[in-house]
Amino acid sequence: RINADRLWDSIHEMARIGPGVAGGCNRQTLTDADAEGRALFKRWCEEAGCQMGLDQMGNMFAMRPGTDPDALPVYVGSHLDTQPTGGRYDGVLGVLGGLELIRTLNDLNIRTRHPIVVVNWTNEEGTRFAPAMLASGVFAGVHDLDWAYERTDAEGKRFGDELERIGWKGDEPVGARKMKAFFELHIEQGPILEAEGKDIGVVTHGQGLSWTQVTVTGKEAHTGSTPMPMRRNAGLGMARILELVDEIAWSHKPHAVGAAGHIEVHPNSRNVIPGKAVFTIDFRSPDKAVIEDMENRLREGAKKICDEMGLEVAFEKVGGFDPVEFDKDCVAAVRRAAERLGYSHMDIISGAGHDACWINRVAPTAMVMCPCVDGLSHNEAEEISKEWAAAGADVLFHAVVETAEI
Amino acid sequence: RINADRLWDSIHEMARIGPGVAGGCNRQTLTDADAEGRALFKRWCEEAGCQMGLDQMGNMFAMRPGTDPDALPVYVGSHLDTQPTGGRYDGVLGVLGGLELIRTLNDLNIRTRHPIVVVNWTNEEGTRFAPAMLASGVFAGVHDLDWAYERTDAEGKRFGDELERIGWKGDEPVGARKMKAFFELHIEQGPILEAEGKDIGVVTHGQGLSWTQVTVTGKEAHTGSTPMPMRRNAGLGMARILELVDEIAWSHKPHAVGAAGHIEVHPNSRNVIPGKAVFTIDFRSPDKAVIEDMENRLREGAKKICDEMGLEVAFEKVGGFDPVEFDKDCVAAVRRAAERLGYSHMDIISGAGHDACWINRVAPTAMVMCPCVDGLSHNEAEEISKEWAAAGADVLFHAVVETAEI
Ligand SMILES: NC(=O)NCCC(=O)O
Ligand SMILES: NC(=O)NCCC(=O)O
Repeated sequence: RINADRLWDSIHEMARIGPGVAGGCNRQTLTDADAEGRALFKRWCEEAGCQMGLDQMGNMFAMRPGTDPDALPVYVGSHLDTQPTGGRYDGVLGVLGGLELIRTLNDLNIRTRHPIVVVNWTNEEGTRFAPAMLASGVFAGVHDLDWAYERTDAEGKRFGDELERIGWKGDEPVGARKMKAFFELHIEQGPILEAEGKDIGVVTHGQGLSWTQVTVTGKEAHTGSTPMPMRRNAGLGMARILELVDEIAWSHKPHAVGAAGHIEVHPNSRNVIPGKAVFTIDFRSPDKAVIEDMENRLREGAKKICDEMGLEVAFEKVGGFDPVEFDKDCVAAVRRAAERLGYSHMDIISGAGHDACWINRVAPTAMVMCPCVDGLSHNEAEEISKEWAAAGADVLFHAVVETAEI
Repeated sequence: RINADRLWDSIHEMARIGPGVAGGCNRQTLTDADAEGRALFKRWCEEAGCQMGLDQMGNMFAMRPGTDPDALPVYVGSHLDTQPTGGRYDGVLGVLGGLELIRTLNDLNIRTRHPIVVVNWTNEEGTRFAPAMLASGVFAGVHDLDWAYERTDAEGKRFGDELERIGWKGDEPVGARKMKAFFELHIEQGPILEAEGKDIGVVTHGQGLSWTQVTVTGKEAHTGSTPMPMRRNAGLGMARILELVDEIAWSHKPHAVGAAGHIEVHPNSRNVIPGKAVFTIDFRSPDKAVIEDMENRLREGAKKICDEMGLEVAFEKVGGFDPVEFDKDCVAAVRRAAERLGYSHMDIISGAGHDACWINRVAPTAMVMCPCVDGLSHNEAEEISKEWAAAGADVLFHAVVETAEI
């Protein structure tokens, strides 16, 4: 078993970097806080005897060598970046759970045949630079490196420039590494495991996602002197589309979800009728056909709403991935590990996207999940217990060590 | 008659300061551009032989002395600040129309018994610092000076600090000046004069306004892994309230209006269900009872919407004024001037708020309006013709000079 106290202490030491305002974290990707978090992780990995690698997307790789020089490494990890008002565990548990696994192997003086590599994937969250899971996507060949570099944040800063600015742009080509397998430990970010009273989620599938950025264009005009019939209020058009999005998501009970987290109106002045509203719809489902149906109904419905209001509407797909089925053997290794350790467990579909969803395209992949309080995530109040973290890391440890062969 | 070309040239020279991105202006209050615009206005006034005054709210007063040392001055003016995506004429026409009137008196070598003072009121627009018409409000005793200084912009900067920073905080106590009368020339910012084919609007009344800032609080949570029934989506609550606002405004046909120009959601991340939405409802009507009815229905309706959705809602009144009836004698002077000059005219209710609405409380006040193309304002594409500007300034000239007595 791993050392639960050491894991817990490391998680909370990391949380001091880029602290939030309400007990969580704001360590958004490619900020100074991200750089500081990376430096701490690097120091810890080096202290554990790992060899560090860094690729052109800033993905960090900490390798513990194996006994067989020809054996492909087993990879394990997640991400250290957070939401602007994020929790302490989302991503961090998976990276530091991987580090804890190496520290435990060191303690026990165990050598594995295959090397083990702990990864910190860059920009998993996708808040500052859409889409989410950007760097694992480039690694898996889903996105081009140059395209990724051109992503801009709300201030117009380029991903490539910011990566260079914080000093974490490496030389290694992205995606050059071959993996025997990839395992990611993550908090569930949903309510199911806690409700079912299970210690471990054996993740068999991941939901698909579609991000559609909608731009509604009306006419800026004075809120006082413009009569109601002359208005072309882009903010009101947006409101009607948000209601439509909710209807569409509910229509695919029980599994589909839909909402807009990102909303901006222009010029955003109290006495100007919004001339433009830009917002992003997030639709998800474990069923690809359902996602496509939701996308189509959004586009048709929003067009109809805007036509009736004299507004224009444009759509841009700014992120998305298909539902994922994880590798049966890796999933079985996770299930076996939970079984062997005596943790209660259940199969589960991941509601969130994860780096593992992309890596699954280029390597046999599986995920381990542990519960979180009230299913709450992407919130500074995100919480898990030390026991939950330890159970997840134990299962990760056993699944990885079995795969890496003693 | 005034010199139409000179007026037109001055307006467009002013528009070069704080230029917009689409032909209009972004000369928001207490920015560096505001300071530059003020300096240009001061230079022009001094060149026209005026004595400059500056009060503790940054209100600028350019006085052309009269022949009678005991006679109260006649005031004329408007504002030089603009919306973030504002037009070239909103406010500017009234200030530079006042300056043109003085230049014309100089050309004609006319002395008036009463001094004439051209005013530039600080922060009429209210975008950066709510409420609108802040400095004329302090002048009229509606707001306290200290309260005004404490207003903050979106970045948390204080009005008082910014006024000092740009170097336009004067020593003169605010509201110390006594006026014989106040006249404000302004573009209509609505469609009525153009539709009716009139050169001049004789403004008899002004609509009242109510700004209610609404804060809807839900729970930040993951857009992917939070099942629909567990969501407390503050953005969706906002959408429903925006629809309600529209219904309320239409229910008071034909005159009431309602919309939200200012909208923010937190944390504004694509994969976080908004935990908070803050937005400002702008309701207006020429009838005070209608405004009160709209406010009450907003509060009750929004409360009901939020209760049903498990959201909390709070309201803050961040601006407002009652409907205004301008001074009968001053209004008659405007009507006589239009008559005398042979301009077509009609009585009109101002849809927008103006500094004149506050000054009306402390001095006999009236307004002159000229048409604007398509009734469009608070838009960089705001447009008027040189002839319309000249007609407005001519009427202002005659009304003011009659009141100031030759
Ligand atoms: N796990 C997680 O929150 N990932 C961010 C991408 C997503 O929105 O699902
Ligand atoms: N005239 C004008 O646009 N004033 C700003 C205050 C208002 O919104 O009415």
